[in-house]
Amino acid sequence: MVSDTTFDPHGVVPPLVTPLDENGEVDRRSLERLLAFQLDAGVDGVFVGGSSGEIALLDTAQRKALLEVTVGAVAGAVPVLAGAVDTGTRRVAEHARQAAALGADAVVVTAPFYVEPHPAEVVTHFRHVHAAVDVPVVAYDIPSAVRTRLTPDIVTELAESKFVVALKDSSGDLATFREILRSTDLPALTGSELLADTAMTLGAAGLVPGLGNVDPHGYVRLYRAARDGDFAAAKAEQDRLAGLFRIVSVADLRRIGFTAGALGSFKAALAWRGVIDHAATNVPLHPLDDVELGVIASILTEAGLDRAG
Amino acid sequence: MVSDTTFDPHGVVPPLVTPLDENGEVDRRSLERLLAFQLDAGVDGVFVGGSSGEIALLDTAQRKALLEVTVGAVAGAVPVLAGAVDTGTRRVAEHARQAAALGADAVVVTAPFYVEPHPAEVVTHFRHVHAAVDVPVVAYDIPSAVRTRLTPDIVTELAESKFVVALKDSSGDLATFREILRSTDLPALTGSELLADTAMTLGAAGLVPGLGNVDPHGYVRLYRAARDGDFAAAKAEQDRLAGLFRIVSVADLRRIGFTAGALGSFKAALAWRGVIDHAATNVPLHPLDDVELGVIASILTEAGLDRAG
Amino acid sequence: MVSDTTFDPHGVVPPLVTPLDENGEVDRRSLERLLAFQLDAGVDGVFVGGSSGEIALLDTAQRKALLEVTVGAVAGAVPVLAGAVDTGTRRVAEHARQAAALGADAVVVTAPFYVEPHPAEVVTHFRHVHAAVDVPVVAYDIPSAVRTRLTPDIVTELAESKFVVALKDSSGDLATFREILRSTDLPALTGSELLADTAMTLGAAGLVPGLGNVDPHGYVRLYRAARDGDFAAAKAEQDRLAGLFRIVSVADLRRIGFTAGALGSFKAALAWRGVIDHAATNVPLHPLDDVELGVIASILTEAGLDRAG
Amino acid sequence: MVSDTTFDPHGVVPPLVTPLDENGEVDRRSLERLLAFQLDAGVDGVFVGGSSGEIALLDTAQRKALLEVTVGAVAGAVPVLAGAVDTGTRRVAEHARQAAALGADAVVVTAPFYVEPHPAEVVTHFRHVHAAVDVPVVAYDIPSAVRTRLTPDIVTELAESKFVVALKDSSGDLATFREILRSTDLPALTGSELLADTAMTLGAAGLVPGLGNVDPHGYVRLYRAARDGDFAAAKAEQDRLAGLFRIVSVADLRRIGFTAGALGSFKAALAWRGVIDHAATNVPLHPLDDVELGVIASILTEAGLDRAG
Repeated sequence: MVSDTTFDPHGVVPPLVTPLDENGEVDRRSLERLLAFQLDAGVDGVFVGGSSGEIALLDTAQRKALLEVTVGAVAGAVPVLAGAVDTGTRRVAEHARQAAALGADAVVVTAPFYVEPHPAEVVTHFRHVHAAVDVPVVAYDIPSAVRTRLTPDIVTELAESKFVVALKDSSGDLATFREILRSTDLPALTGSELLADTAMTLGAAGLVPGLGNVDPHGYVRLYRAARDGDFAAAKAEQDRLAGLFRIVSVADLRRIGFTAGALGSFKAALAWRGVIDHAATNVPLHPLDDVELGVIASILTEAGLDRAG
Repeated sequence: MVSDTTFDPHGVVPPLVTPLDENGEVDRRSLERLLAFQLDAGVDGVFVGGSSGEIALLDTAQRKALLEVTVGAVAGAVPVLAGAVDTGTRRVAEHARQAAALGADAVVVTAPFYVEPHPAEVVTHFRHVHAAVDVPVVAYDIPSAVRTRLTPDIVTELAESKFVVALKDSSGDLATFREILRSTDLPALTGSELLADTAMTLGAAGLVPGLGNVDPHGYVRLYRAARDGDFAAAKAEQDRLAGLFRIVSVADLRRIGFTAGALGSFKAALAWRGVIDHAATNVPLHPLDDVELGVIASILTEAGLDRAG
Repeated sequence: MVSDTTFDPHGVVPPLVTPLDENGEVDRRSLERLLAFQLDAGVDGVFVGGSSGEIALLDTAQRKALLEVTVGAVAGAVPVLAGAVDTGTRRVAEHARQAAALGADAVVVTAPFYVEPHPAEVVTHFRHVHAAVDVPVVAYDIPSAVRTRLTPDIVTELAESKFVVALKDSSGDLATFREILRSTDLPALTGSELLADTAMTLGAAGLVPGLGNVDPHGYVRLYRAARDGDFAAAKAEQDRLAGLFRIVSVADLRRIGFTAGALGSFKAALAWRGVIDHAATNVPLHPLDDVELGVIASILTEAGLDRAG
Repeated sequence: MVSDTTFDPHGVVPPLVTPLDENGEVDRRSLERLLAFQLDAGVDGVFVGGSSGEIALLDTAQRKALLEVTVGAVAGAVPVLAGAVDTGTRRVAEHARQAAALGADAVVVTAPFYVEPHPAEVVTHFRHVHAAVDVPVVAYDIPSAVRTRLTPDIVTELAESKFVVALKDSSGDLATFREILRSTDLPALTGSELLADTAMTLGAAGLVPGLGNVDPHGYVRLYRAARDGDFAAAKAEQDRLAGLFRIVSVADLRRIGFTAGALGSFKAALAWRGVIDHAATNVPLHPLDDVELGVIASILTEAGLDRAG
């Protein structure tokens, strides 16, 4: 276990997809290959059971398998962050304790949802989750999924009270992210695929891009270039990755949902690259069709990625 | 167990609050008194683990205790409906199986949330949940919590495919509710506290009002009057209940959240009436303050309700 | 001019479409035929320059022509209500004075939009508009267009201060509408096409249904039946009109916008019935296509409406 | 008049407030002082009648006075951009023609609102406005006010068809702004007060910050530093301006609306600095109170701004 005082999330920490087999169970072999692929690319941590990991769709057995395989395969090489995403405090604490027991180094926690909390209640939520588990807590701002924002005021209070050790920002609101960087010294990681270099310039501690599943090497190059002050190189890499990110918009939203299209595209790309065996997502998400898979393949090719075999 | 073909939800089925003790655990005695209070008032069913039951905030142990006590205390007198509310299909199926194993007669299920599903994926969700459990499924339309609507098209498909046996409508959109009543023969219950008589006139099978926790006798009178064609009596009762419903708006939303204020008011009223021992809600919800409790007491008095002992 | 104290809006007051000619100007002949068609059906008033009248898309010359023709053709037979819809108080006052000068009997005014007003500022808005014009003001609650709600608290204050003489409710929120009927004696008209009979039962003073353009006879029958206590007849008429209302959902929203589809369907139906010459809507709305027009025609036929000679 | 081919908006172009006198009319003297203050600071253009200029609240006479004074006082020193903000195409064209007749060099136009347009109808809107006026059109993306986004696809089509000569982005969505910069060569100006330096780094042509009313010298320094490649200096200036920007959040939103608080703070600051005589905003906006004005004064002092006299 990593203690609160020493856990220092930084660098590239992709929010990994959860590979599934033909029966919809966690595909342990594909997951191991995905982890090896990520570690080989030089990532600084892995985040399993996040939004990109379909956490909202995983049952208890899947979450357990996911963490067992991940902790075993990573074997301490980098920190393992685990999503503990649920609607309320006690439900989150339950997930967080399970994740910690399975070896997660930190848990990633959103504001409550389904309910409508007051900002003071959001702080109470993190206070209780922090008290309930022995591993550090990372605050996760993702209003597109949970609606409630982690405002600068909330984040400042969470930072000062030491309820959380870092922020993962998936708000899409860079002005607020910058305000948080200005007003606290909490390490803050951006979930933006398209503003990774910009976020680094503003002082982000690291990157948690869903697209990092597909091209971890690109985000590692981007991160290192930005960290070393070579912003032109970071920007060039970012521009290439922006082209690649078009895969998440390929799905026809008249036919399948936004989540199915975006997460399905990450998995389809990983299958195309030979990293995982199946592109399947959990029920109730519907699969991409052949036309869409063809467009994704052409985008991958255009971005210079290798195909398996 | 009630089979799909015979389960026919109707009448007054209040979505019960989950009483808690000083330690935040399910208060079994208070819950038993609440159930006796409801049965004595003549309700036609009870719905535990709904939004009013703080389902989003209950952990596994609380849900288990809630159902054990309820199933035991109700003892078959009326059907017990249990919420199986979670973000994704497999998570919902897990809750639903647990509820069925503990004796629930039916489970109440929303559209997926956190993710953004396509309408076709919402149907897939209910198809899988239906296949996963041996008890009937009631569809629960609550866009204020889950955002996604159960549109008339979706409900019609769910009804025709027999994936669900009834609809609980908490959309606040009476025109759509009426459209569903027009286009399917699915029993549909309204969650509206304020349009219960109107919904009955339009053909609703029953009522699931959160305020029914506090004044089940009122909603039973209203339901029976409407069922028997005495709309004037139903309207008079509805008008009185509308006055009582002001308790949910007493909380100062600059201080605590909407959910805490509304659910807290139901529990405060039940404590005032002597039905439950404590008005406490789950973390992270904050409590009402003394001023607010005073206003609630005066509204209860004005509505003609008795105070305990 | 009708003074505040005697103006009493009630009955069926359809929000008329604004017929256009081939050049996009107000088609005076078609407008006169539409007004004759409405008066012949027995409407109790006409509302021009509302949302159904494309008020947001009409320029000064069009608004002037619209009112000139309307006031002339109606010739005092029934009151003429005119929309004075704009973003801010002074802009609204300008429209309202122009409408009054052209002979409108009352103006219909929404909350400010584009800006984000406080409820107290919404009241200030109506106070100023009321002071700026010599005709009565009707408050128009249409959150789908302006976002800000006219809450029961706001409406109560507007009613008590006599800033407005009536409410037109297009919120789709029948519980709030009922609360307003309970708490004020302000005449309130519903804009709902689908809950007209229900609204009458709850005490609505009248109906302002967009679909009344197409079938004013139906809404007049519905209104009179409800007014006379024959709710079964009102409901039967409502059910027929619900079938007819499907015309607003015919448009393929992947191709044209919601407004174009809905308002275009009213105009297409009126052209099909021979009441107006052209189904054209203002720029930038795109027209319905032949397939959609065919579906609309079949719905009209099914609802028992006559086609022009 | 500046022709389409030569109009090249760039640099600092503050969206000026509209000073009012005690009677609520345009305060010509204060406006002249504001313009002199801005020109003296070295701005590259002025934008009157934007959101910060209370365009939604200005009537015809105010808009006319605003442009007359501005065009006269600027006297060709820099381009004058004028907002032509209204709900529909013909209404916008009317405003745009009036602005052009009064000497505006370009008009700034949003997507239609109040109505719900399809993206293709948004393009049609700009095509018609472009055809209706002799001055260039700048597209204005401000979803917080009009809801509809100007997506990269729309902007690309507007750029390629030459319907607009520039984009003003007030979306708060920097990833999309960057995508537009990547995919078109349309000059794009950011409305962000807090990401001005970042936007410049990404290739923005200029800045349109509301806070530029209060501290044009700061934004001019920031712009020039960024343009000249001195990003550290730009960032330092940005950080100081971020502190100053806290004035827009001083208002108590339980008492007055967001718009009143934000625009009121700009005017209060300008009055404090002695640039304008009165801090009054148009009806229906309510004024800041003395406590709030005191906090604003302390923020201005802290940011190093001079007080009048």
